[in-house]
Amino acid sequence: MTFEYTRLFNFAEGVFRAMGCSPDDARQATETLLSADLRGVDSHGVARLSGYVRLWEAKRINATPRIGVVHETPSTAVIDGDAGLGLVVAPRAMRLAIEKAQVAGTGWVAVRNSNHFGIAGYHAMLALPHDMIGIALTNASPLVAPTYSLERLLGTNPISVAVPAGEQPPFVLDMATTTAAQGKMEILERKGLPAPAGWIQDRDGNASTNPTETRNGGALIPLGGETGSHKGYGLGATVDILSAVLSGANYGPWVPPFVAFLQPPADPVGQGIGHFFGVMRVDAFRPAAEFKVHMDNWIETFRGAKAVPNQQVLIPGDPERRMTERRLTEGIPLLQKVVDDLTGLGEKFGVKL
Amino acid sequence: MTFEYTRLFNFAEGVFRAMGCSPDDARQATETLLSADLRGVDSHGVARLSGYVRLWEAKRINATPRIGVVHETPSTAVIDGDAGLGLVVAPRAMRLAIEKAQVAGTGWVAVRNSNHFGIAGYHAMLALPHDMIGIALTNASPLVAPTYSLERLLGTNPISVAVPAGEQPPFVLDMATTTAAQGKMEILERKGLPAPAGWIQDRDGNASTNPTETRNGGALIPLGGETGSHKGYGLGATVDILSAVLSGANYGPWVPPFVAFLQPPADPVGQGIGHFFGVMRVDAFRPAAEFKVHMDNWIETFRGAKAVPNQQVLIPGDPERRMTERRLTEGIPLLQKVVDDLTGLGEKFGVKL
Repeated sequence: MTFEYTRLFNFAEGVFRAMGCSPDDARQATETLLSADLRGVDSHGVARLSGYVRLWEAKRINATPRIGVVHETPSTAVIDGDAGLGLVVAPRAMRLAIEKAQVAGTGWVAVRNSNHFGIAGYHAMLALPHDMIGIALTNASPLVAPTYSLERLLGTNPISVAVPAGEQPPFVLDMATTTAAQGKMEILERKGLPAPAGWIQDRDGNASTNPTETRNGGALIPLGGETGSHKGYGLGATVDILSAVLSGANYGPWVPPFVAFLQPPADPVGQGIGHFFGVMRVDAFRPAAEFKVHMDNWIETFRGAKAVPNQQVLIPGDPERRMTERRLTEGIPLLQKVVDDLTGLGEKFGVKL
Repeated sequence: MTFEYTRLFNFAEGVFRAMGCSPDDARQATETLLSADLRGVDSHGVARLSGYVRLWEAKRINATPRIGVVHETPSTAVIDGDAGLGLVVAPRAMRLAIEKAQVAGTGWVAVRNSNHFGIAGYHAMLALPHDMIGIALTNASPLVAPTYSLERLLGTNPISVAVPAGEQPPFVLDMATTTAAQGKMEILERKGLPAPAGWIQDRDGNASTNPTETRNGGALIPLGGETGSHKGYGLGATVDILSAVLSGANYGPWVPPFVAFLQPPADPVGQGIGHFFGVMRVDAFRPAAEFKVHMDNWIETFRGAKAVPNQQVLIPGDPERRMTERRLTEGIPLLQKVVDDLTGLGEKFGVKL
């Protein structure tokens, strides 16, 4: 089944309003959440709405947070999200980073006491209209084993970097620091397919092709797989440290799970989950017009490179932008299971899908 | 053959002095260069000294550069390296980033018109004694094909992040954004061993196990290999953009080669090669003592995790630190080929090895 963007928007906004979010926060949360559906990251979009609701019901998400700055310098700040929706806390942090960049050239905001923020790319891209480069990182529930580890100590800890261009659309990298995100394992499971080598390990640390290993004590493998997972581990670790050790959030195995049926660790080392945002004004380095000419040249050179037959070199963000164009015109497809879930949610809150 | 650190230091310093470097620059260049030998990155150390000399002879390295700030804001700057040794230009840029961080909380310095800067980790680590987090990136000669590309458009573009801790030694990530660095291919070639899957492709973009493919139009594969190279490509691209599009250096296929026998492209899009440095004061986010307690806890938790038999979870920087301790006491081993090369260099410049 396919749904118009505005229909899903009105529905999700209604649910967030019913949770008690302010009109502004409900609109922001919806825009952040649905950016995943538009960009084709179906695992992070409206399919997760009931997950956020369950966390709110478990009193682990605060619908009316007092989001506050707890420390700052000319180019930095730490924000306490007051257990609010990451979908709302993160754009607030990015706006502060943008304000700081306007004055100091760059802005760097670490966030503690937050929750899942949707897709990292949405937040990084908030910098683009200001001719700024945006960076967004977050830690997440531990599902990933560092190289040699039998324990799951890291989340899929994504890195997003958005860079403005001139005539060309922007460069938008948005990647998990694992070989494959957990969502891809769920797709393989539904299709009855094995996982490729280097994606997942069993509880004893052996290579596995069973995409459901994480339910049996197994773990996702960091980016780099069999011969290079120490690099993905290092990147995921860096994301964890900047997002949580720097902000005062929970890190490593202490990051609270996204699912409401799993309890957060009883001995937290910080508050909530952590994010880290960076914004750099392009003209804090060179004139924006000059930068854009070269960024266009960069993009055209890479996109025009000689490629293997029937393929083209893609610029990070190309597939997601094309998907957005398509879904804004053709609608957003949802699995029946998701439609049923949303229908139930609508009935509970008196919001029509 | 094994050489004491001070012996190699005096030799390399003498060669840099003979090139015309000032006493300060010769000392700095030597310290930067030999940090690679100490940390076990043999491909980037004193074995490359004659490579720098040949670039100087070809007038592509300026031994007496006027390194200048061409643009700045409270938290940013762009430095023109005046074609100087990257070994000297890069620490200068890091010092400026540290000064900016002292005032603005963070400092971000993009560098153009530079040359190869040795190992990224050396520069990132300069932040550590100041209780700051250091970041160092650089672009490099194109040897890497983006996903689907037959053309080599990126270098091995490393990322280094150094984070101070308290009782524990610091976290020091220093990684190429390819599955394996070119130096590993050279080691495989010497040993007559094949390259693992996902490391290298032939000139037609096919998977290859021949470590010499880059001499026949083949290319290194970005981190992530067969099923995830788009992520390594995205990271390498980000390094290229921040180091060069932002600074005004050459990017992508225009990056000048490190070897003097290959000419730089005749149609440069910028000046020299580019670097990007970041420094963040820890206490621009939270009190340094508090941060260090949690950083120690992070390190101890990861290092103490249950591991596969006969292995331990390593903290990025552990192997290099142990290597440094060993080589400072036992000396630095050099291949006979390198010793012969250095001896020849010494005779030419009247410097005794």
